[in-house]
Amino acid sequence: MLTPDYPVTLTDLYQLTMAAGYHVHNHQQKATFELYVRRLPAHRSFLIAAGLEQALTYLEQLHFTPAQLDYLRQLPAFAQVPETFFSHLAQLRFTGDVWAPPEGTVIFPHEPLLRITAPLIEAQLVETLLLSLVNYQTLVASKAARVWLACQRGERPVGFTDFGTRRAHGPEAGLLASRAAYIGGAIGTANVEAGLRYGIPVFGTAAHAWIMAHDSEAEAFANFQSLFPQHTTLLLDTYDTLEGARQVTRLPVPPQGVRLDSGDFLTLSHEVRQILDEGGCAQTQIVVSGDMNEHKITELLAAGAPIDLFGVGTELVTSLDAPSLGGVYKLVEQRHPDGRCDYKLKLSASKAGYPGAKQVYRHYDAHGQLVSDTLALADEAPISGAEPLLQAVMVNGQRTLPQLPLAELRARTLTQLQSLPLAYQGLEPELPSPVVVSPRLQELLRTLSVMPAAPL
Amino acid sequence: MLTPDYPVTLTDLYQLTMAAGYHVHNHQQKATFELYVRRLPAHRSFLIAAGLEQALTYLEQLHFTPAQLDYLRQLPAFAQVPETFFSHLAQLRFTGDVWAPPEGTVIFPHEPLLRITAPLIEAQLVETLLLSLVNYQTLVASKAARVWLACQRGERPVGFTDFGTRRAHGPEAGLLASRAAYIGGAIGTANVEAGLRYGIPVFGTAAHAWIMAHDSEAEAFANFQSLFPQHTTLLLDTYDTLEGARQVTRLPVPPQGVRLDSGDFLTLSHEVRQILDEGGCAQTQIVVSGDMNEHKITELLAAGAPIDLFGVGTELVTSLDAPSLGGVYKLVEQRHPDGRCDYKLKLSASKAGYPGAKQVYRHYDAHGQLVSDTLALADEAPISGAEPLLQAVMVNGQRTLPQLPLAELRARTLTQLQSLPLAYQGLEPELPSPVVVSPRLQELLRTLSVMPAAPL
Repeated sequence: MLTPDYPVTLTDLYQLTMAAGYHVHNHQQKATFELYVRRLPAHRSFLIAAGLEQALTYLEQLHFTPAQLDYLRQLPAFAQVPETFFSHLAQLRFTGDVWAPPEGTVIFPHEPLLRITAPLIEAQLVETLLLSLVNYQTLVASKAARVWLACQRGERPVGFTDFGTRRAHGPEAGLLASRAAYIGGAIGTANVEAGLRYGIPVFGTAAHAWIMAHDSEAEAFANFQSLFPQHTTLLLDTYDTLEGARQVTRLPVPPQGVRLDSGDFLTLSHEVRQILDEGGCAQTQIVVSGDMNEHKITELLAAGAPIDLFGVGTELVTSLDAPSLGGVYKLVEQRHPDGRCDYKLKLSASKAGYPGAKQVYRHYDAHGQLVSDTLALADEAPISGAEPLLQAVMVNGQRTLPQLPLAELRARTLTQLQSLPLAYQGLEPELPSPVVVSPRLQELLRTLSVMPAAPL
Repeated sequence: MLTPDYPVTLTDLYQLTMAAGYHVHNHQQKATFELYVRRLPAHRSFLIAAGLEQALTYLEQLHFTPAQLDYLRQLPAFAQVPETFFSHLAQLRFTGDVWAPPEGTVIFPHEPLLRITAPLIEAQLVETLLLSLVNYQTLVASKAARVWLACQRGERPVGFTDFGTRRAHGPEAGLLASRAAYIGGAIGTANVEAGLRYGIPVFGTAAHAWIMAHDSEAEAFANFQSLFPQHTTLLLDTYDTLEGARQVTRLPVPPQGVRLDSGDFLTLSHEVRQILDEGGCAQTQIVVSGDMNEHKITELLAAGAPIDLFGVGTELVTSLDAPSLGGVYKLVEQRHPDGRCDYKLKLSASKAGYPGAKQVYRHYDAHGQLVSDTLALADEAPISGAEPLLQAVMVNGQRTLPQLPLAELRARTLTQLQSLPLAYQGLEPELPSPVVVSPRLQELLRTLSVMPAAPL
């Protein structure tokens, strides 16, 4: 199987060399790291947080096996590392605290997607895997939210479903994409394992091979419908889309849907709709797939294309116009056994961040519209009337957040999207991030640095 | 763990509805499907085949579990599907034949990356997972080959290593990317699990957090070097890169390397080189990381930047300038129990392909340079003096290709890259694909279609 028992060695070598260094030099401090993005990917006005569930499962089961320790012992780099380090790893579990916004939360730059406080070695070791899980699912959920917004822009809202497994970056990426796409607003997925594992509704049509495996398209259509009377969506473009639509009208009963997979979808959807309507198939829905994205969906719906459902694949699961999320995982403070607290701030010019363990307070107006966020220190007094976004989800290595049904996370996303001012809902960013820095955090910055952080 | 025991349900729902249809309507034919790309991704002149090893492992272990069958039985779409289908699935194993070019082979459009011949249900079911495995690894190996070519363009060849796990599309993508990047020319990876599992050399430096966890940079450098005397690469840019370089020269012995991770790398690499040389660290290597790609490497090396090793992350593991490979898996022929053979050809305008099970013959000149490829039918007489690219790698469900050491696959890639004419080695395509269609395949096309296939 794939997730969730990720090997602890699925990390960068330097996490382990640094861990050895912390062990040998007896670093006893508790460290706080925050996972956040410094800036949004191209074309994005916001992110949708996703990946927390897998991150917590990973942290809960973190451990070293004897085979992993043997591998490390024989690496030339570790030749001088004392055996006490490997004994320490053999006992190591994740014992820290995690704070995070729930999956499905709208997030802006510098707002933590995860905040980890743990003994330095533990907090450092998990960086690579946490980034990998949260970067990717957040990327896909954010793309899905854009597609969802596009699907609301016609005369009536329509749905979209994830068709992307085959173009995802490997099998697990396809599975995680199905999950993140659903959280971000998809109505379901074609990925059966995502249905089995996560309870996501599964959708399917038929492929060109089904048509081609028969002597005629008519026979292929009839055979499919006889077996799936209530669940037949017939693919029209194997030979000729309009001829395919005419074949559909000759079936004994109208099928649930037809799918267009190539050609000029605006013209074809009108022509196919007319053939179906005139042929007694007025209830048959039109599904469109083939390099769909939020721009094409917006255009088709604005032009009045009679499309009922979009299948979105490559663009969704690779976030094609912005295929990576630059999430980083940075040390922001340390607390030493003697009670001393260090705030940490990297000073290299292009990469400056904000020091200290943080909380985010979200302000809404009387209509429930998001007005602004305040990036504050976690130990500041709560801001009255504002919503604190980060919750305690793991305490002393034990998760305190129950596993939430995905439908609940999806509903959270849709509520959050509806709370966004229209300027954040468009296809291109119009407004700067609505994040302001609390006076106390500004003051801390001043005391720590001569160099200002990058503006929010 | 992650690979290789992928669940059979990690597939699109329509593979299973079609399978039910083939079962109920008693399709007994053997089908041949080919996995290929219709056109190259943006900026690419060729592909490097990768992912075959995982594909074969997946096919060997393919089976349904009772829990998977129970999930399918309760899906509303399957309400009319007879129990004999589920009994058939419970017994199903992959019993087909697979032909493929070895991993590390240069490949052009329409040349099969896999050719699968099996009972129709088996061949159809595996489409999604095979595409997902081969699309992604081929994408990354092809990107890595471009980076490798860029690394040869300076006064002396330099190396590059994979630093991308944290930005890959999930943990498994990071692992598969390490493998594909190594096949494509990387000298190693930072991913420890890739070292453990695949035997890839692992490389590591230290992170900003290591520096920041100490009271001073000098202490951080000294502590790291004392533990890893032969394996120390120190990160210079936490506070000030040039000051960091001066600190390095004050260490008791010169470290193996230093790493630059931000700033103007051309200027900084010269300045750091000078500080190191004047400070008695002439043997200390300069490693550069931070949004590296084949273009930036070409420019830096052409400008004479004294860089010894590149760490390449996001750009490599997401193939950022071309983040998806449009591999397709198409039915090309069927053989019926009565011996009749159908050649299959999809006719929709933009997606036409070539019918029939195929072989590719590669022609070299006397200097070992690739001249052209011939796309031929598999049952044509072999072309004398040309190299057939596809080999039998699985027969009747049993793999016949042994698992090859990755270093051998990597060596194959480098040999293949050196056989490419210079016009295919550049950063942008200059020449059309060198693939020509054999006379017999042309003749078959004519007999089957009124519509010509897309030109090669």
